[in-house]
Amino acid sequence: MSTTAPRGFRAAGVAAGLKSTGAHDLALVVNDGPDDTAAAVFTTNRFPAAPVQWSRQVLSGGRVRAVVLNSGGANACTGPEGFGDTHATAEHAAKELDLGAIDVAVCSTGLIGVRLPMDRLTAGVTAAVAVLSEDGGPDAARAIMTTDSVPKTTVVERDGWTVGGMAKGAGMLAPSLATMLVVLTTDAQVPADVLQAALKQATAVSFERVDSDGCLSTNDTVLVLANGAGGVTPSAAEVVEALTAACTDLAMQLLADAEGSTKDIAITVRGAASVTDALTAGRACARNNLLKTALFGNDPNWGRVLAAIGTTDAAFAPDRVDVTINGVTVCRGGAIGDPREGVDLTGRAISIDVDLGAGSEQATIWTNDLSIAYVHENSAYST
Amino acid sequence: MSTTAPRGFRAAGVAAGLKSTGAHDLALVVNDGPDDTAAAVFTTNRFPAAPVQWSRQVLSGGRVRAVVLNSGGANACTGPEGFGDTHATAEHAAKELDLGAIDVAVCSTGLIGVRLPMDRLTAGVTAAVAVLSEDGGPDAARAIMTTDSVPKTTVVERDGWTVGGMAKGAGMLAPSLATMLVVLTTDAQVPADVLQAALKQATAVSFERVDSDGCLSTNDTVLVLANGAGGVTPSAAEVVEALTAACTDLAMQLLADAEGSTKDIAITVRGAASVTDALTAGRACARNNLLKTALFGNDPNWGRVLAAIGTTDAAFAPDRVDVTINGVTVCRGGAIGDPREGVDLTGRAISIDVDLGAGSEQATIWTNDLSIAYVHENSAYST
Repeated sequence: MSTTAPRGFRAAGVAAGLKSTGAHDLALVVNDGPDDTAAAVFTTNRFPAAPVQWSRQVLSGGRVRAVVLNSGGANACTGPEGFGDTHATAEHAAKELDLGAIDVAVCSTGLIGVRLPMDRLTAGVTAAVAVLSEDGGPDAARAIMTTDSVPKTTVVERDGWTVGGMAKGAGMLAPSLATMLVVLTTDAQVPADVLQAALKQATAVSFERVDSDGCLSTNDTVLVLANGAGGVTPSAAEVVEALTAACTDLAMQLLADAEGSTKDIAITVRGAASVTDALTAGRACARNNLLKTALFGNDPNWGRVLAAIGTTDAAFAPDRVDVTINGVTVCRGGAIGDPREGVDLTGRAISIDVDLGAGSEQATIWTNDLSIAYVHENSAYST
Repeated sequence: MSTTAPRGFRAAGVAAGLKSTGAHDLALVVNDGPDDTAAAVFTTNRFPAAPVQWSRQVLSGGRVRAVVLNSGGANACTGPEGFGDTHATAEHAAKELDLGAIDVAVCSTGLIGVRLPMDRLTAGVTAAVAVLSEDGGPDAARAIMTTDSVPKTTVVERDGWTVGGMAKGAGMLAPSLATMLVVLTTDAQVPADVLQAALKQATAVSFERVDSDGCLSTNDTVLVLANGAGGVTPSAAEVVEALTAACTDLAMQLLADAEGSTKDIAITVRGAASVTDALTAGRACARNNLLKTALFGNDPNWGRVLAAIGTTDAAFAPDRVDVTINGVTVCRGGAIGDPREGVDLTGRAISIDVDLGAGSEQATIWTNDLSIAYVHENSAYST
């Protein structure tokens, strides 16, 4: 049921003609209240797309009544004209829904540097309003897909309240989120400051630890809307727990559907002096093309793990580092461990465990392999 | 003539049986004096290979009489035993050449985490000593190849003195050098401190600005040996100029032969507040897999240039950035410029010019595209 699983939300997904394929490309999520509390996390890219600039303004008030999302064009690097397009989108949706434009967040995804066909987009918004439904969540989730092969949705049930959500993203996954759009909804009653803090905590250990290809998009947005329709007021800790569960579920779906990937790789760095060190070392592995191609080729090339970690400033002594791949400790004390022939990499799931031998902290980064299909998909994206 | 172009150097390349293909895999370069001044730049990877650890000790005296280089095994992450193997290699070569072990630098390249077959290696050193020749430079250059498709050599003639050199490297090119071995020779008379300063300057604007895949190897070494055999003492500036010419020539050969590449890409960042900013922005582009795959696909996807630069902390205002690809200014003021259809990317050479509009400094980073052949080569390397 996606974003319409909690009470008091309606959604829709329609084909506005933004995608040349005729697939659904415009989604609308509406919060029917009574509350309209909202929080968001946006890309840190210094070229934020027009919809990110707009939605930041909307969210500064901590309130959102509706979200318009389109695929088929990112509306990024489109200058003041592009910002005007986003503003016009919000104005149009607000008019159709009897709201103010400042109540309407906008998200876009697709090719950078191309203006959106506004006549089609506004007609699509009108069409979406006409079919808004309490069962519309799955349609909305389908309409935000780009290179995704499947829609991503989640439902987390708690005691008298629910979190629902949808995500799109199949590449450019990186820290601080990347080419991913997420809308979460809940019928719990949550003050805006509690919601914002909880969302930040939840994304920090989920989306921000998925590092598919190290690329950071101009459009990434995670939104959460809370309407209190269930009359339940969970504690701050309960909100964090439920949002983390929803975000982790969606993050793992993004990972499993990453462009052209054949492996889901969990890199756990233990024995670190700090969580930051563990994350730094894990990310260095997740972004090392030589390691990622080796794993695509079922090659337990642990030397590339060490070479990657050796470029970081994490605290460790080279002769105390162990590396275990799918249960086989192929490297002990920075040198040769058990035979690499014992490592079975034929499945989709790969675990790389690195022990830095420098402390007691740990963290896990998730990534994918670098495959021939990844290159093929991304070399043919805009042409 | 490679390393034997200057007077007073002999070299050899032989098949020691380290490579299963039977190809030449062991090289020897000997300096016959009168001087034995030397300087070096090594990898900054925190897992330096045994030969790097050894050669650092040798170079600490500023003197080198001979260099043994092997392909077919990197001798990295092999623990104290691996260091013992390198030490034994130097001892053996020293004995054959009537030198001390501390006069002999060692370089290795190949798979990480595997011990070298020392019986074959020492027999190979003996065989190489037997065929040392003043014409042996090209043989030595062939013996250090791994995935290189051609040997790389250079000769720079100056007024009464010469710089010769050889390089190997066809992947893992990155700042601070990567999976590259370089030996330069000169018959000029140069004090060790002048030679070291000149080499550092020369590598900073050549090898360290080639960023093929962002990966930094455990074995990178650039050595220069000066014997004064020509009796000429050039100025410090003349040494910098000649070494820079030799290093740039070899760096461009490495770029042209990068694993599986179909494009040589020069990313020039102008209008930067500092050279550091220009390099940071250029490297962010050079390491962006989405941009590199787009260029492989002949797609002038300038949005990915901005998205890459947007992840950096370089000084710029987003609405003042221009991007020109192969002469067409596709992005002006951070927004849409001339039509991308006008960009011809069918050739091998691609120039990306970014103007940050924030100052008057500039720098160029060279890289390659990310191709299907790159993935194929690197997924099948150790298996």
